[in-house]
Amino acid sequence: MPQLAYVNGRIQPLAQASLHVEDRGTQFGDAIYEVCAVLNGRILDWQPHLVRLRRNLGELGITLGVADGPLTLQARRLIERNGHTECIIYMQISRGTAKRDHAFPSDAPANLVMTVRRFDFAQRIKQLATGIAVITQPDNRWGRVDIKTTGLLANVLAKQAAKEAGAFEAWLVSGETVREGSSTNAWIVKDGRIITHPTGTAILPGIARDSLIRLAQGAQLMVEERPFTLAEAMHADEAFLSSTTAPILPVVRIDGQAVGSGTPGPVTARLAELTWNEVARQTGWRA
Amino acid sequence: MPQLAYVNGRIQPLAQASLHVEDRGTQFGDAIYEVCAVLNGRILDWQPHLVRLRRNLGELGITLGVADGPLTLQARRLIERNGHTECIIYMQISRGTAKRDHAFPSDAPANLVMTVRRFDFAQRIKQLATGIAVITQPDNRWGRVDIKTTGLLANVLAKQAAKEAGAFEAWLVSGETVREGSSTNAWIVKDGRIITHPTGTAILPGIARDSLIRLAQGAQLMVEERPFTLAEAMHADEAFLSSTTAPILPVVRIDGQAVGSGTPGPVTARLAELTWNEVARQTGWRA
Repeated sequence: MPQLAYVNGRIQPLAQASLHVEDRGTQFGDAIYEVCAVLNGRILDWQPHLVRLRRNLGELGITLGVADGPLTLQARRLIERNGHTECIIYMQISRGTAKRDHAFPSDAPANLVMTVRRFDFAQRIKQLATGIAVITQPDNRWGRVDIKTTGLLANVLAKQAAKEAGAFEAWLVSGETVREGSSTNAWIVKDGRIITHPTGTAILPGIARDSLIRLAQGAQLMVEERPFTLAEAMHADEAFLSSTTAPILPVVRIDGQAVGSGTPGPVTARLAELTWNEVARQTGWRA
Repeated sequence: MPQLAYVNGRIQPLAQASLHVEDRGTQFGDAIYEVCAVLNGRILDWQPHLVRLRRNLGELGITLGVADGPLTLQARRLIERNGHTECIIYMQISRGTAKRDHAFPSDAPANLVMTVRRFDFAQRIKQLATGIAVITQPDNRWGRVDIKTTGLLANVLAKQAAKEAGAFEAWLVSGETVREGSSTNAWIVKDGRIITHPTGTAILPGIARDSLIRLAQGAQLMVEERPFTLAEAMHADEAFLSSTTAPILPVVRIDGQAVGSGTPGPVTARLAELTWNEVARQTGWRA
């Protein structure tokens, strides 16, 4: 079965899916996106993703002429027609196609693209046993990283640096503060307290991050949303990261130095159990 | 005659010119670009633009499989086939098309796009008589704006703010320092000295900026490449901006306040004369 993509109302082979060269996402990074996990054929946390998508459109003043209902139906239809039950769906909305000019065009309808890619979530559960390594990189991004835009070059360069160092992720550090990873949120655990950077303009308000906070609080675990330093992270008992494609993964090394015992810790394990139970509750999926 | 565009070796109608939805420029802002002025059918400052393009590719580790000679021929061919003698040519090079993943793909050839748009340079000479207004906006961009990438959303939002305020441009201010405009370099004149922010990572090293410095120095005018504050700009004798599409334009108002006499000044006029003489020397074009 050929892979299919959605472009402005039309489902077509991914190989032929294209945008005009004067798409504003392409020429200006004038676009937002979302990535959702699909397990057992069901979209995880669809509602929060939709809320964030609408909020980001509002922040940039982009009008998407597709309401939530039809958008949901089209996303589901694309997933079904691709025939995947475990996959990720990528949704991108740009300000439209227009003659190149920095200022907003007056009459260009937004371009909506959706693609679906098979994804192995079971691998994320296997990784819970060993954990992963991160490196640190200076946070070189723009001032509104709370908006999930396609202007990701700083993230790309940080992720590439991680890959070249044999690490899974790069944690972005501003001054002394660890903000988040290049495509994940960053967490540490100290004396039983779970610590992550507060929302605002300096991090992306992750859907997985939000879910983890609710699950932790529901289990009477202590969560502190506050900035933490790299030194704190280096001396933490545990560390972990979260994202849509890696709902929770233990971080066992930062810049080559072991975190705590250098193996995944009990608080992270407990949160992973809560996370994957929540995935099962929403979607019926189990590894 | 239909407008034509160049995409990866092929000249085709602009209306059909497209990139795959998984072009890395589109999904990550993982692309660089150049804009050149074409007057009398000749590309202005082609060599410096080519040098900057190669430098930016090097900074990002993007390999373009097209050498300078063929690139020059293709650019000229596209201009000729569009039949414009006064136009701008836009060139964009992304890291290629690949399954979405932040880290660099291993085997995706770069995507090269060129478009040409008619441009009225004579209008820029008319604007010398009245000058234009700028507003100021916080510089919210990432840390490597010296690389001319398509991640321009902060610039877009600043330009839109200028447009809504009835101004031509937004000057981006960091702390007290005026760095540059959203798509132009920023200059002030005080006691006969011409002042502009030094190159580095905080501004784009403009080709028009570089040309102006050389012309000014050749005419025994004093140029200082140093940061200047918004207060200095507000109390300057003159101010102006420069870019490929506006080689020099007097700035007569900043945030609604008159600069100097509120009319274009003599140093700016002298620099404009030198600039347009240089354009005539290179291309034979006169308004």
